Amino acid sequence: MVMEQLPKRPANYVPLSPVGFLPRANAVYGDRTSVIYGRVRFTWSQTYHRCRRLASALLALGVRKNDVVSVLAPNVPAMYEMHFAVPMAGAVLNTINTRLDANAVATILRHSEAKLFFVDCEHVRLAGDALQILARQRGVPVPLVAVIDDIDAPTGVRLGELEYEALVARGDPAADLPPLQDEWDAVTLNYTSGTTSAPKGVLYSHRGAYLSTTSLLLQWGVGTEPVYLWTLPMFHCNGWTFTWGMAARGGVNVCIRDARPDDIYRAIARHRVTHMCCAPVVFSILLEGDGASKRLDAPVHVLTGGAPPPAALLERVERVGFKVTHAYGLTEATGPALACEWRDQWDRLQHPERARLKARQGVSVLSLADADVKNADTMLSVPRDGKTVGEIVLRGSSVMKGYLNNPDANDKAFRGGWFLTGDVGVVHQDGYIEIKDRSKDVIISGGENICSKEVEEVLFRHPALADAAVVAMPHPRWGETPCAFVVPRDAKAATVSEDDVLAFCRKGMARFMVPKKVVITDALPRNALGKVEKVKLRERARKLAPTVPAQRPKGKTTTTTTVGGRRDDQPVAHIMAVSRL
Amino acid sequence: MVMEQLPKRPANYVPLSPVGFLPRANAVYGDRTSVIYGRVRFTWSQTYHRCRRLASALLALGVRKNDVVSVLAPNVPAMYEMHFAVPMAGAVLNTINTRLDANAVATILRHSEAKLFFVDCEHVRLAGDALQILARQRGVPVPLVAVIDDIDAPTGVRLGELEYEALVARGDPAADLPPLQDEWDAVTLNYTSGTTSAPKGVLYSHRGAYLSTTSLLLQWGVGTEPVYLWTLPMFHCNGWTFTWGMAARGGVNVCIRDARPDDIYRAIARHRVTHMCCAPVVFSILLEGDGASKRLDAPVHVLTGGAPPPAALLERVERVGFKVTHAYGLTEATGPALACEWRDQWDRLQHPERARLKARQGVSVLSLADADVKNADTMLSVPRDGKTVGEIVLRGSSVMKGYLNNPDANDKAFRGGWFLTGDVGVVHQDGYIEIKDRSKDVIISGGENICSKEVEEVLFRHPALADAAVVAMPHPRWGETPCAFVVPRDAKAATVSEDDVLAFCRKGMARFMVPKKVVITDALPRNALGKVEKVKLRERARKLAPTVPAQRPKGKTTTTTTVGGRRDDQPVAHIMAVSRL
Repeated sequence: MVMEQLPKRPANYVPLSPVGFLPRANAVYGDRTSVIYGRVRFTWSQTYHRCRRLASALLALGVRKNDVVSVLAPNVPAMYEMHFAVPMAGAVLNTINTRLDANAVATILRHSEAKLFFVDCEHVRLAGDALQILARQRGVPVPLVAVIDDIDAPTGVRLGELEYEALVARGDPAADLPPLQDEWDAVTLNYTSGTTSAPKGVLYSHRGAYLSTTSLLLQWGVGTEPVYLWTLPMFHCNGWTFTWGMAARGGVNVCIRDARPDDIYRAIARHRVTHMCCAPVVFSILLEGDGASKRLDAPVHVLTGGAPPPAALLERVERVGFKVTHAYGLTEATGPALACEWRDQWDRLQHPERARLKARQGVSVLSLADADVKNADTMLSVPRDGKTVGEIVLRGSSVMKGYLNNPDANDKAFRGGWFLTGDVGVVHQDGYIEIKDRSKDVIISGGENICSKEVEEVLFRHPALADAAVVAMPHPRWGETPCAFVVPRDAKAATVSEDDVLAFCRKGMARFMVPKKVVITDALPRNALGKVEKVKLRERARKLAPTVPAQRPKGKTTTTTTVGGRRDDQPVAHIMAVSRL
Repeated sequence: MVMEQLPKRPANYVPLSPVGFLPRANAVYGDRTSVIYGRVRFTWSQTYHRCRRLASALLALGVRKNDVVSVLAPNVPAMYEMHFAVPMAGAVLNTINTRLDANAVATILRHSEAKLFFVDCEHVRLAGDALQILARQRGVPVPLVAVIDDIDAPTGVRLGELEYEALVARGDPAADLPPLQDEWDAVTLNYTSGTTSAPKGVLYSHRGAYLSTTSLLLQWGVGTEPVYLWTLPMFHCNGWTFTWGMAARGGVNVCIRDARPDDIYRAIARHRVTHMCCAPVVFSILLEGDGASKRLDAPVHVLTGGAPPPAALLERVERVGFKVTHAYGLTEATGPALACEWRDQWDRLQHPERARLKARQGVSVLSLADADVKNADTMLSVPRDGKTVGEIVLRGSSVMKGYLNNPDANDKAFRGGWFLTGDVGVVHQDGYIEIKDRSKDVIISGGENICSKEVEEVLFRHPALADAAVVAMPHPRWGETPCAFVVPRDAKAATVSEDDVLAFCRKGMARFMVPKKVVITDALPRNALGKVEKVKLRERARKLAPTVPAQRPKGKTTTTTTVGGRRDDQPVAHIMAVSRL
């Protein structure tokens, strides 16, 4: 028979959107706490009405469908609310990494054509510098600016006329807001420094973000009434979708300005935190001082990603009472794409083996139709032997819409019906995927991706340098840090000093990207085709790596390190490590 | 700016389908147990390959896109596999209630134009009768028939040539299967029980079923490695989507032919069952014999729905070790639509209050965009006062595509952007919805709405009563009045009197709600799902109705009525009517 074609109706075909979790939270969790920040507390009903107010205020400012609204802020309530209010006005939220430098911020504002720019009072200087860069460029529109003053302890700092709370107060909670018509519409725009030097704008659809949100709640087993501590910056993939996820679960968002160990432990104790996400580097921070001897009153579930957590670190942090789930993700996959689903039978294993299993990246989350490891040339799956490496590829509705205004990058990223991650891995016999090599140009330092090419480009601009290459160097605190190998123009004169190079770097890039070691050398190893042999440099960097954990910086102290593998015939006169703040 | 329109690609726009959980289960849970039935065990890899084989065999039999494949079977492995294999062939699975009579089965086969009909060996006689009815009707095609023999203990029973295991064996696991192009395509067809009118065929889309599956896993908090006992028939809304849900979680499906208490307790102990679903009537079954004195080794999570569980029953079954979650749903909403999300603060309450809160239907599941209670005339929301009744309405992508070939029913069910459930409820101040009645079960007496459920709740608290149901009885003065049918705990002794019951009622409810008739009977008529067949009770009540206008009561006068329709063979020993004040 030819089955009757039944029409889609408003009652049975509602565009999927994570923003819809907020009206539902208002309806069913209205009296429960939504957000805690210092002495400030909101209920889900208040959050809903504040978001409606802000959305109507945005419309009154002229914000229209598909306009980009950028924000530079830490994990404060406004940052949380904007994840709903901005798309409720039909606009696209662009959260900017607060650790970028003014040039990078300006680049993002320019590329995204941001119409409105919210700036937390803490980042007014960085934003001001970025806006000045924009203003100097001809034909580039400068966005309207609004400051987010601290809601718990107002500073009075302003940058222009507009202020977040004033906008909220001015908004009308009963105003008509434009309904979402198409779930394929963009909801957020997140820039990544990923694998090329130019930042790429990753667009998420409402559909993809909805599916990721529910899928990650399921994957991590987030039950009812979670208390979620915002240690992971919301500007990282919209907080791995848990911004929206907490509304879906009617959870409590505990917002803190900085993820300092004291703040974290205090928040856990005071608010009975049940869940948090962070990069493995936060584990080291949590174990500092008397951290390792602490014991939590109740277990805190931690979802971690960005780099495989070292086994020793896992063991120590779990002893404190953190229950770690390891995931792998990338901006282009709306955050976590693989998660190491724990199997009950592994409970019987001893620790090193457990940690080895847990350090694997795991199985695809439910929103993905498939994840695989393929030979990038043949696009055939590698055998499940835990040995044969291939490129990790993904397919499913939680993969980004694409890069904004970047057809070349889109052409490279999508191939043969798959999204290519650029990461290299293996598949174990049990189907669990393990990454063997982050795509080789990326250095993951303290959870932040540093593109070696970007650092190299700055080094290449140094007038006294002829050649440069940057690779990852293992670091007991940051996981990895950049290590630069540079060749002076005039090798004999050796006119360039490491201090010169470092000062030059500090002027040209965000602090966290500045190399922690600079090796001055006669020449870089190159292969027959002239390509720098980074494998060899990584080998050298590994030997130069600090072998003891760096101390937390005190004042202007720098940490000197052992210089393993140093040879007298190398022109490595000065090797130093600086801790980043 | 006008934001670039990025195209949907195969890598980032995959049609949502719950069937996709199976290939994922094969990839990531391949070596884990999928199905247990008697001595038969399969892994997820085996289930996947068996389903591929069956799908290819269906294609070889000529099954094509949108063809209906019907099945009449209990919860055996074949029934489980068909939830994947049939849509993998592009066809629509129609599971038929095994407790229907041959006429009803024939009606469904005819209305759905089933092309292929799978029949479990236990139901060959019923199927044969239905097929004979079909064969006698001119111009009605008779489907091809295949028997599902018992896989653990083959019977040799056949009905025609085809047999399930032979088809699986004949299939090619490597055959090409038609990819799903449109998530709006139908995946299953479930007929309503037809308590109000002719059975209606409810079509689910792949999209709706996917969203319901993930949403219900989240709502119920089903973690990794669940062991799910199939007490709920899979023919009921596809097992409330947990057929697909177990594949999503890589869980174990424990299949049993009958949900007898011994089988249930044995399966729980043997397979360490963690989850099961059932109607509240199963609770009574579980408490039979020495059931009430049992204590489970580990808690078993039970999702229940179909009727609100009486508080006393909840208390007793929870004491055994079942942890009950109460949900409300209907075929048209792909199963559960509201669930009583437990709040931690309720843990501190005492039992009667806890049970009262738990017996509420609760809040909308995540796949719904909205659930509300509205005045059916004005379509305005009722106030959140726990008192004002209205019709429960739903909106969201888990609402059915519609009724198959039934435009009238579709017109009635969809109105003003909502799906109308036909159920009557209230909204409490905390946003939790409570059903007061099916709209047809509301008794309108002298202009006042009486919810039969409210009267029943009082009757259930009577210590001498085991069962009770209240329906409308026509009344010449009041239009309708409540008529109660009650079953004493000890039927032979018949220790309970009507006066007892009425006195009890008067203490527990408003006078106008007190039944005007109380019928003491041995048992209530129940359908296959354990639902009281109120249609039959109404029929009986109609015959008991007073035929002359009752006098307006004066003082303590009671009105005696004629006892129309009473038959001597009925165990209706005492029939009386009392006037309301």
